Amino acid sequence: MQFTRLVSPIRKRSEKAGAPPGTLAYLGDAPTTQPITVTLFQYDERELSERTLAEPAEAFPLPEEPTVSWLNLDGVHRVELIEQIGRALSLHPLLLEDLVNTQQRPKMEDYGAYLFIVARMLDYDPERRHIHSEQVALVLGREYLVSFEEDPGDVFNPVRARLRSGAPRLRKGGPDYLAYALLDAVVDGYFHILEQVGEVIADLEEELVSHPTQETLQGIYRLKREMIALRRAVWPLRDVINSLLHSESELIQSSTKVYLRDVYDHTIQIVDAVESIRDLLAGMLDIYLSGTSNRLNEIMKVLTIFSTLFIPLTFLAGVYGMNFEYFPELKWWFGYPMFWGISLTIALTMLAFFRRRGWM
Amino acid sequence: MQFTRLVSPIRKRSEKAGAPPGTLAYLGDAPTTQPITVTLFQYDERELSERTLAEPAEAFPLPEEPTVSWLNLDGVHRVELIEQIGRALSLHPLLLEDLVNTQQRPKMEDYGAYLFIVARMLDYDPERRHIHSEQVALVLGREYLVSFEEDPGDVFNPVRARLRSGAPRLRKGGPDYLAYALLDAVVDGYFHILEQVGEVIADLEEELVSHPTQETLQGIYRLKREMIALRRAVWPLRDVINSLLHSESELIQSSTKVYLRDVYDHTIQIVDAVESIRDLLAGMLDIYLSGTSNRLNEIMKVLTIFSTLFIPLTFLAGVYGMNFEYFPELKWWFGYPMFWGISLTIALTMLAFFRRRGWM
Amino acid sequence: MQFTRLVSPIRKRSEKAGAPPGTLAYLGDAPTTQPITVTLFQYDERELSERTLAEPAEAFPLPEEPTVSWLNLDGVHRVELIEQIGRALSLHPLLLEDLVNTQQRPKMEDYGAYLFIVARMLDYDPERRHIHSEQVALVLGREYLVSFEEDPGDVFNPVRARLRSGAPRLRKGGPDYLAYALLDAVVDGYFHILEQVGEVIADLEEELVSHPTQETLQGIYRLKREMIALRRAVWPLRDVINSLLHSESELIQSSTKVYLRDVYDHTIQIVDAVESIRDLLAGMLDIYLSGTSNRLNEIMKVLTIFSTLFIPLTFLAGVYGMNFEYFPELKWWFGYPMFWGISLTIALTMLAFFRRRGWM
Amino acid sequence: MQFTRLVSPIRKRSEKAGAPPGTLAYLGDAPTTQPITVTLFQYDERELSERTLAEPAEAFPLPEEPTVSWLNLDGVHRVELIEQIGRALSLHPLLLEDLVNTQQRPKMEDYGAYLFIVARMLDYDPERRHIHSEQVALVLGREYLVSFEEDPGDVFNPVRARLRSGAPRLRKGGPDYLAYALLDAVVDGYFHILEQVGEVIADLEEELVSHPTQETLQGIYRLKREMIALRRAVWPLRDVINSLLHSESELIQSSTKVYLRDVYDHTIQIVDAVESIRDLLAGMLDIYLSGTSNRLNEIMKVLTIFSTLFIPLTFLAGVYGMNFEYFPELKWWFGYPMFWGISLTIALTMLAFFRRRGWM
Amino acid sequence: MQFTRLVSPIRKRSEKAGAPPGTLAYLGDAPTTQPITVTLFQYDERELSERTLAEPAEAFPLPEEPTVSWLNLDGVHRVELIEQIGRALSLHPLLLEDLVNTQQRPKMEDYGAYLFIVARMLDYDPERRHIHSEQVALVLGREYLVSFEEDPGDVFNPVRARLRSGAPRLRKGGPDYLAYALLDAVVDGYFHILEQVGEVIADLEEELVSHPTQETLQGIYRLKREMIALRRAVWPLRDVINSLLHSESELIQSSTKVYLRDVYDHTIQIVDAVESIRDLLAGMLDIYLSGTSNRLNEIMKVLTIFSTLFIPLTFLAGVYGMNFEYFPELKWWFGYPMFWGISLTIALTMLAFFRRRGWM
Repeated sequence: MQFTRLVSPIRKRSEKAGAPPGTLAYLGDAPTTQPITVTLFQYDERELSERTLAEPAEAFPLPEEPTVSWLNLDGVHRVELIEQIGRALSLHPLLLEDLVNTQQRPKMEDYGAYLFIVARMLDYDPERRHIHSEQVALVLGREYLVSFEEDPGDVFNPVRARLRSGAPRLRKGGPDYLAYALLDAVVDGYFHILEQVGEVIADLEEELVSHPTQETLQGIYRLKREMIALRRAVWPLRDVINSLLHSESELIQSSTKVYLRDVYDHTIQIVDAVESIRDLLAGMLDIYLSGTSNRLNEIMKVLTIFSTLFIPLTFLAGVYGMNFEYFPELKWWFGYPMFWGISLTIALTMLAFFRRRGWM
Repeated sequence: MQFTRLVSPIRKRSEKAGAPPGTLAYLGDAPTTQPITVTLFQYDERELSERTLAEPAEAFPLPEEPTVSWLNLDGVHRVELIEQIGRALSLHPLLLEDLVNTQQRPKMEDYGAYLFIVARMLDYDPERRHIHSEQVALVLGREYLVSFEEDPGDVFNPVRARLRSGAPRLRKGGPDYLAYALLDAVVDGYFHILEQVGEVIADLEEELVSHPTQETLQGIYRLKREMIALRRAVWPLRDVINSLLHSESELIQSSTKVYLRDVYDHTIQIVDAVESIRDLLAGMLDIYLSGTSNRLNEIMKVLTIFSTLFIPLTFLAGVYGMNFEYFPELKWWFGYPMFWGISLTIALTMLAFFRRRGWM
Repeated sequence: MQFTRLVSPIRKRSEKAGAPPGTLAYLGDAPTTQPITVTLFQYDERELSERTLAEPAEAFPLPEEPTVSWLNLDGVHRVELIEQIGRALSLHPLLLEDLVNTQQRPKMEDYGAYLFIVARMLDYDPERRHIHSEQVALVLGREYLVSFEEDPGDVFNPVRARLRSGAPRLRKGGPDYLAYALLDAVVDGYFHILEQVGEVIADLEEELVSHPTQETLQGIYRLKREMIALRRAVWPLRDVINSLLHSESELIQSSTKVYLRDVYDHTIQIVDAVESIRDLLAGMLDIYLSGTSNRLNEIMKVLTIFSTLFIPLTFLAGVYGMNFEYFPELKWWFGYPMFWGISLTIALTMLAFFRRRGWM
Repeated sequence: MQFTRLVSPIRKRSEKAGAPPGTLAYLGDAPTTQPITVTLFQYDERELSERTLAEPAEAFPLPEEPTVSWLNLDGVHRVELIEQIGRALSLHPLLLEDLVNTQQRPKMEDYGAYLFIVARMLDYDPERRHIHSEQVALVLGREYLVSFEEDPGDVFNPVRARLRSGAPRLRKGGPDYLAYALLDAVVDGYFHILEQVGEVIADLEEELVSHPTQETLQGIYRLKREMIALRRAVWPLRDVINSLLHSESELIQSSTKVYLRDVYDHTIQIVDAVESIRDLLAGMLDIYLSGTSNRLNEIMKVLTIFSTLFIPLTFLAGVYGMNFEYFPELKWWFGYPMFWGISLTIALTMLAFFRRRGWM
Repeated sequence: MQFTRLVSPIRKRSEKAGAPPGTLAYLGDAPTTQPITVTLFQYDERELSERTLAEPAEAFPLPEEPTVSWLNLDGVHRVELIEQIGRALSLHPLLLEDLVNTQQRPKMEDYGAYLFIVARMLDYDPERRHIHSEQVALVLGREYLVSFEEDPGDVFNPVRARLRSGAPRLRKGGPDYLAYALLDAVVDGYFHILEQVGEVIADLEEELVSHPTQETLQGIYRLKREMIALRRAVWPLRDVINSLLHSESELIQSSTKVYLRDVYDHTIQIVDAVESIRDLLAGMLDIYLSGTSNRLNEIMKVLTIFSTLFIPLTFLAGVYGMNFEYFPELKWWFGYPMFWGISLTIALTMLAFFRRRGWM
């Protein structure tokens, strides 16, 4: 089962236990042979250049113009690339460690000259029916934004497309606005998850009413686990965005804050929906448990009533099967039909009684 | 089932994922062909004019007198109308986006020159037995109030009637008092829902005691879902009104605040009632589960006792049906009556035993 | 069932939906023909006068001496009387509306020249086994206290008696001390409820152990509902008294605050007891559910064991009832006694087995 | 059952309902004829005198030297003694009322010239298996400490012994240090309770695994009630000690606060343990419910399987007991052995089937 | 069972009840004959000396250079050693008492000249399947750190190794950085526990789906208890590290705080994981309970259906076993085959009915 997702980070983490802080060792799942694509966007309101670099070092020193440089890595398993960036931008060793240790909880840390933002990008895999979670980290400086994805993905593509098409607000905005745009893309992904979860819930409700099975129960349990995972991603992210909103760092311009407030609203909507879904799941569990037990009990009741009908009849047949020598009924010519008469009367009386009691 | 109501907004939301913020795209259910009625009230203490406009642009520029202009749209699916108002009043693009994205959580945002208030109007549909939720948005400026309903409805009619009849406090009050009156009307609608929910609960309690069925359980579950929906509408609204109460914006006059406090009390009453109902539902669930299981068990017990009575009798009949050659009882002339005597004795003894044990 | 008590206020409330705020319309249960007694106490340390008035207007203007005037109405269903007081003391229209809308949540509102306090008086009706809830409202000014009861009652009589008997602290105190005394009387009433609830719980625990029935379960559910009602009365009252304690209004003298702290302690004691009772009820529910199921299962087990004993014997009797021509045992002279011997052996072996396994 | 302990205070309390505040009436259980021992310790670093007084009045006026006077009463049912102390030390009437109303919740009240501290001393009675709760009240002045126990007891004896043996810190400390020492003794008593509860839990866990009975369930319920009682004593006490810690009263010297912090830690440990025990009890309940139901179901399953084995055999015997004239098998010489052969085959096949399905 | 672990500290604690505060008496499990190893590291950026001392007194007075002295004791059961350190460093008596009373809750106390930090080191014992908990205490002064382990262990070895290998940050840092390193090692141990718990959960989930037994339930209960223990260790530790982070003590350099923030994040991750695991356990319990009941019910249903099939057949055989003289069917030559025909028809009809109803 996929519980490994919940604990694997922890397992890996402990392998490094005792190492000094700041030791760079990649703790994720990616094979280190997988290549990492390094892309560099440099833009301001008028110009835009887009390059794919062999390694991050080529990006430095950052030019004075155009104003904003966005360096993106779609993998963090090659530690030397991370170190290049760390040297070029004088990043704190603990920050670098957090970059490659891809099991971070979403957080925001203000290092003065730059902000460090960690979020988690979620992806619902309908095949294996679980949520894949990937770390996204942003380093936001005055003139640059460096973003680190754990795996290659296309969630940032819409932002790239808007950059190329010259979307004015994005091109005019600084790296903080770009950071907002990326976080917004991440949060939009959560809505996508909720949509798919919503469909799974609709299916489960359908199943619950028509033909609940042990599968349904496991489906409810699985959803519960997914909601735990989602909550673990969204709740701290809400705090992250809230602290960006109320940050006094001058790296966040006040004109960007109104947009951050919008993302903040979205995270609250998601938290809200997750809580509602948890409530619903609890209710569905009650219906499931009661439903399966009722269904079975109904069967048992019908069978028991049926059996009970025959109990006195079988006794009666047993009685007339006795071998007493002095047994007057056996000699009556109407004995046998009488037996059937009595049997029918008993059966019908019992049926009437059961029906009157509302047992059938 | 109507869970779609809970997730459909989300689905729609994700379709737009990746679009730049501020893109206006209607995300509600209304067919875009449905006409939108635009009404304009302009009034002060002495005068009142009421007009239906072809489009909002006709309302601008707002006259200096009479003081208060109330522009109402009973639909937000024609994006160009929204944009007209946005241009005329210089509204922030994110605000316009929130207007047409009709799945907002209730919130209040202070843009300095105007306040933006979102609430949700609820309507209980007894047919389909669920709560229909509609977004209501208010833009409150110094001399105007613009209100946006998602669907045509009559919840604001009492306010219109009071305006026409010249209710002094309303006519003397500014747009902030008008905003209060509209919010009050929305909250009064929640009481209406609670009333109907109260009747459903009374029915369910009745059913629980007299003849609980699987239907009853589903009724409890459905109510639980409605309470989730109600809570999602009321809790944030309480915060909205609270922040209006403590707002330092000069758009809210202090004389209006005492009225807002009154609405605030109402939202607390509703929150309170919702919580109580949730508690009651939990209790009803316990009774249901215990009741159905007891009812069935009672039946099974009676049937089992009945069967058990016949077990030894049937055995006895079997014994006297055996074909042993040397079988003295079979030859006794009183054998057969004796059999009945023993049978009766056994049955009565067992009955007495069961009764003494309190099993019947 | 009495759930109506919980929702009826709400129903009534919605009938008025849409009316402008400040419209006076009585929303309680009392028939409007029932007379209202208006009593006026005027006292200071030396003098005391006590009068019954035809209508409240007679009380005004309030004399300069004696210092304290206490006007009490034991009903609020005659709106014109309320309006007389409102005019005489210049009370805010919303306050008057709250007076006649007798479903208020306990609250304290500071209108500057006077404080408005709402509490709920509870009364346990052992016949119908539910808590009757009545609104009590106090308007506390510098020289007067006006109190409004929803129904005639005797809960304030001890306070009247102490006034007449010249209790020094009460006679020396101002209207704030009088308000304290009335609130204290209300809270003392809650202890009375708890006492009766305690007896019901003792009975239920007794029943649970000796002979739990479906009645017991309904009793637990009913108590749960009563606790919800009690909590709804006490929790907000605690906040009311707390805000009186920390009020900066000069209408509350600091010498009175030490007494308010005492009432505050009492409300905390009650909240505490209510929470404990809720915990106990949950535990009782567990015992009930487990107990009834155990009891029934015990019966079923005994019956099943009994039936099982006869199963092989009946089979054996069936075997010797077969009509095979070549059937040696049937011809043995000791066949029949042997049958009984075998039967007894089987039955005793099974009994021993059951006993050894601890099934009996 | 002992629920009375939880409600009896309440009942008693209500008997006094309506009495003016400050009326002294003893509300505890002790017979008023039981004598009260009044002891007076007077000590400083160098001297110590210890006396038993006929009545508290003898202690006053307090001498200037030695510095600290500790007056202890081991009963509060003789109201006149309380009043003597109240007069001598000018205590507030409400304080006196709280002294004799022995159902107070732990609290700390700062009256300026003295502090009033109420705690509850708990005692586990293994016979009646419940916790006996007794009120302990301290009045802490600049040069004196007056302590009131509800019943005679020996929990303060270790403190007395340390005084007599000249424990330096205690003898050097002021009345505040003495108050700390007494509270510490009270809290140490809670650890004693927890220890005994721990043993009961170990017994219950043992029972749960080996032979759970309805008794076990009642034991769990009883413990749950004890935990409620313990929590009601400890939680407010934690707040009391916390407010002593942060009190700005000059009656508490800062050198004493480090000791109070120690007691505070102990109360947190106890709260912690109580919460853990509640969690454990919930888990034990689940095991109990599942265990008893499993146990019974196991029995039913075995019995049912046994019965089912005989069903087809009995039918077969019935078949060969039929009296058809043309019934070839009956005439075969090997008919009877064949019957046994078929029967055995059927039974073994069924057994094999059950076993393969894992039902046995 | 190992509940003793939860209560034994408490039991021991109470043995000392009534003793004056500051009395040193060891309350742990270790036999007092077990030797204690005292090690002293003295280092700065350039030098490092490492010694094993016969007793702590040899370490004092601390040299001026190298700057940092780290004294470690791997046992606290020899009270005289503790007292030596207490005298040498002028530690508060309560602190010494906490050192030897090894059941402290994690806490941080600022004594001005030094900080006192208590944490709990956890160790999962797969044999006995429980978490062993050991107290770790740190006394952090300006130039020294004294650490006290309850039992010898190797959790600090990686830190020692880093010291010896000259890890620059550790060698350059002060005693506060060393304290951080030790706390980090402790917290890393918690991840190790979570990893093992994760494996146990995976096993339990496996069991739940394939073959749940009463063992599985006890496994769930045991894990629940472990989670309680883990929570009791981690939650207060989180507060400890938080108060170190926000401490204004100059013993914590601001350069160290960024590292403490890292440990703080780890504790939050652990708290998070513990809460998630508790949620999962609740879900697993539901599946277990439903699963076992379903499994059994399934068996009962199959057996009951099987029995029911034979009920009418057995009756029929009984009928034709009756001995009526006038019984036409018995004389028909096709009577016996007809009986089998009817029987088969009845059985097949019933089977078809059951199948159509979905009962099989």
